[in-house]
Amino acid sequence: MQLERIRNISLRDKVMSAEQASEFIKDGMTVGMSGFTRAGEAKAVPKALAERCKQQPIKINLMTGASLGNDLDKILTESGSLARRMPFQVDTTLRKAINNGEVMFIDQHLSEMVEQLRNHQLTRPDVAIIEAVAITEEGHIVPTTSVGNSASFAVFAEKVIVEINTLHSDKLEGLHDIYIPSYRPSRTPLPLEKVDDRIGCTAIPIPPEKIAGIVFTSTPDSYSTVSGPDVETAAIAGHLVRFLKDEVAQGRLPKNLGPLQAGIGNIANAVMMGLLDSDFEDLTMYSEVLQDSTFDLIDAGKLRFASGCSVILSERMNSKVFDNIEAYQDKLVLRPQEMSNHPEIVRRLGIIAVNTALEFDLYGNVNSTHVCGTKMMNGIGGSGDFARNANMSIFVTKSIAKNRAISSVVPMVSHVDHTEHDVDILVTDQGLADLRGLAPRERAVRVIQNCVHPDYRHQLMSYFERACVRGGHTPHLIEEAFSWHVNLEKHGTMHLEHKQSCDSQQ
Amino acid sequence: MQLERIRNISLRDKVMSAEQASEFIKDGMTVGMSGFTRAGEAKAVPKALAERCKQQPIKINLMTGASLGNDLDKILTESGSLARRMPFQVDTTLRKAINNGEVMFIDQHLSEMVEQLRNHQLTRPDVAIIEAVAITEEGHIVPTTSVGNSASFAVFAEKVIVEINTLHSDKLEGLHDIYIPSYRPSRTPLPLEKVDDRIGCTAIPIPPEKIAGIVFTSTPDSYSTVSGPDVETAAIAGHLVRFLKDEVAQGRLPKNLGPLQAGIGNIANAVMMGLLDSDFEDLTMYSEVLQDSTFDLIDAGKLRFASGCSVILSERMNSKVFDNIEAYQDKLVLRPQEMSNHPEIVRRLGIIAVNTALEFDLYGNVNSTHVCGTKMMNGIGGSGDFARNANMSIFVTKSIAKNRAISSVVPMVSHVDHTEHDVDILVTDQGLADLRGLAPRERAVRVIQNCVHPDYRHQLMSYFERACVRGGHTPHLIEEAFSWHVNLEKHGTMHLEHKQSCDSQQ
Repeated sequence: MQLERIRNISLRDKVMSAEQASEFIKDGMTVGMSGFTRAGEAKAVPKALAERCKQQPIKINLMTGASLGNDLDKILTESGSLARRMPFQVDTTLRKAINNGEVMFIDQHLSEMVEQLRNHQLTRPDVAIIEAVAITEEGHIVPTTSVGNSASFAVFAEKVIVEINTLHSDKLEGLHDIYIPSYRPSRTPLPLEKVDDRIGCTAIPIPPEKIAGIVFTSTPDSYSTVSGPDVETAAIAGHLVRFLKDEVAQGRLPKNLGPLQAGIGNIANAVMMGLLDSDFEDLTMYSEVLQDSTFDLIDAGKLRFASGCSVILSERMNSKVFDNIEAYQDKLVLRPQEMSNHPEIVRRLGIIAVNTALEFDLYGNVNSTHVCGTKMMNGIGGSGDFARNANMSIFVTKSIAKNRAISSVVPMVSHVDHTEHDVDILVTDQGLADLRGLAPRERAVRVIQNCVHPDYRHQLMSYFERACVRGGHTPHLIEEAFSWHVNLEKHGTMHLEHKQSCDSQQ
Repeated sequence: MQLERIRNISLRDKVMSAEQASEFIKDGMTVGMSGFTRAGEAKAVPKALAERCKQQPIKINLMTGASLGNDLDKILTESGSLARRMPFQVDTTLRKAINNGEVMFIDQHLSEMVEQLRNHQLTRPDVAIIEAVAITEEGHIVPTTSVGNSASFAVFAEKVIVEINTLHSDKLEGLHDIYIPSYRPSRTPLPLEKVDDRIGCTAIPIPPEKIAGIVFTSTPDSYSTVSGPDVETAAIAGHLVRFLKDEVAQGRLPKNLGPLQAGIGNIANAVMMGLLDSDFEDLTMYSEVLQDSTFDLIDAGKLRFASGCSVILSERMNSKVFDNIEAYQDKLVLRPQEMSNHPEIVRRLGIIAVNTALEFDLYGNVNSTHVCGTKMMNGIGGSGDFARNANMSIFVTKSIAKNRAISSVVPMVSHVDHTEHDVDILVTDQGLADLRGLAPRERAVRVIQNCVHPDYRHQLMSYFERACVRGGHTPHLIEEAFSWHVNLEKHGTMHLEHKQSCDSQQ
């Protein structure tokens, strides 16, 4: 039964245990693994590797598409096998190790890592471990629920280990569109002009002799933990849907808005859910991760086509989609993240990009990654790929956090992932600020009036007014720009009245 | 004589004085003007407008390609006619008005403004004023020494005023390649695959009836004020050339490096001059501004082809090039800035981008625009268009400024124009830091060891070490991150020993 998934018969004698396959990985190696937003990651071999580390210390440089499911980042971190990790993660244990300086984490635009491998600007993987639905007659690899960087990892690696996960239906074959840009400087235009164009092949084309081991698994992907809209995220969605309707009315957007991209997580998911109750029709997505909301929109007849590089679903939606994947075959494609996030395509298609901010400031700079400027949360992910090149770059966040102790709108962000030059629209539960065509002083007034929580409005206006007295194109009180963050670290709140008297001398 | 430059005979009765043409501009209008890095700007009509302002106050929203020559930004600022200005400037008087909040300045990626006009995200110009060499039989406009945003301004404006500058040789015709991307969402790939591809036409195609007035002028472009290499810029060039040679040796770059982009100014010019004495051959440029160094490299047989969107030269080089422009016709093309800086092309061609930083920090974030976080210098220009999408993104700066009072390498930049995610290589006169594939803590060590001036090395290492004790992926002492800038503002130096005792309590 299982062996039928290996349609290239000469490869059937490469089947081995995860423990055996893990032996290909030696201390100091660079390993490229499938897996993007906890979907489609290799599951058995990394676990076996972590086990081996208990006997003999092995340190690897681990590259993936994005985050891993099944606690793999936790397990690998605890085993001590991660020397370096890129380009993204969401795991609490790994995050701690990164912030302690124990794991070197390289936080990268998700479309760029493979380009840097292609140019040898990063070390190419010695071993690639790719989760697959099947191996074709030609020995090509059919991915599962994510493509991520799997195709280029397999192409660049010396050796490839395939994990065939029999829990995934073999009907996933045909869902993927594997296209790899040619080498520069003789690269030709990427031939993708519409979200539903298919320009590549349905499996990862590598010479079969590179496949060094095949492991069978049947562990499911982790389910998405995304929760439904709450009062604040529903308010954010409401502001955004009203704004988009107005943009259409003004002739600035086509009736179906153009292709949509939505970042991962509750807020972006809620925003997409907001479109369910809207009048918009014939919507399309050209995004990175496809979440529950994508399929809710498809099921409701609102969304005509979704292009992504991974699918991560809640338990409810998972069986609904994957048990009926044929019903979605003509509405869905999964591409390599280099293609789903490619600047060339994002600019060409005119994407509306909706991503989540950790905090933003008066002037529209966005922090997506660092708590108080120092502690890594997850990583920039694809937000920069989209925000920079999108038709419209939208960032959403709740106006306050931690029981009002934190304002997400601050005088100056403590880390910049998206500069004022790349941010068009800011939305919180309080309202929406359209920053297009505005100078910094004008942006500030709109952000204060529309986005900041009332608890912090006076405090932010006070900062801005005093900064304006001092002057400058972008008025700041440089010695006070981080006073909210400092106060948070010292006194647990950004409310400045809660500070010690000694600070007031500053 | 002059009239022969208007080859469409029906347009010859549109000739008028600059004063008459300026009457098309009414209070509150948006005006799109030719001019990029002080080359090819309309010269007579804006002056006449400034004169009119003495009688009746007129406020306009002025858009250009980039900076204007002939003191026009100064003259317009002093006349009080600038309400808004975008996307770039370099003028002292205008800069002061911007920093005083008197002129609203929108500092934008140079490739993006026209895209925002196309989508009506910015107000389209009521009037376009375009400097030209000639008007063709079809009524199309042949630009002069820059293309900038002229083509799209002329296409989008209600009325077009053409300034035919007879000082420019009519042999410039044929130099330009005017291509305008189609509307989204049905845009097709930009068909440019090599730096010397010509994909458009040689004049700006507009219906002749849009031309409302034609003014003859004979004022030259301002000369470039770029100076030759000094000890520090020569050192920067030396570090960079050595690095590039090594990249070729390692197989990470082709022998001719791939297309080069260099920002404007003395440092980038010096870097390009450094290539003159190198072994590199068959070089190409796909850049924004072509400066003296471009033509020195062409004349030396080092540079095969240069694509830009404007040419700005010193007095010496100006006559050498423009008196013999035929000799350069097959080595040169001028494109709209949307094309010279387009993300799609920059990524496809694999450009080596060299731009100047005002300051950069421990972790590779770059400030290109704001002095001490508040005061606008010039603007981001095209640096972001290139840095984000380039094969290799290099930033150069002298390690110190203002007689050692300022270190260009700081704990945290006071404004971010290019994030750590978009910066590969940093170079100062002290040395070069290759940040590719490094985590923040690793980047910091390289920056301290290689880039910072010895005067500040200990002080920066002290900051970094103390920050590491506190921890975080990107270690910072958030309350001290701007202490160097604060010290500079209070005591005129970034040397912290020169601070008042009261500060030491912080």
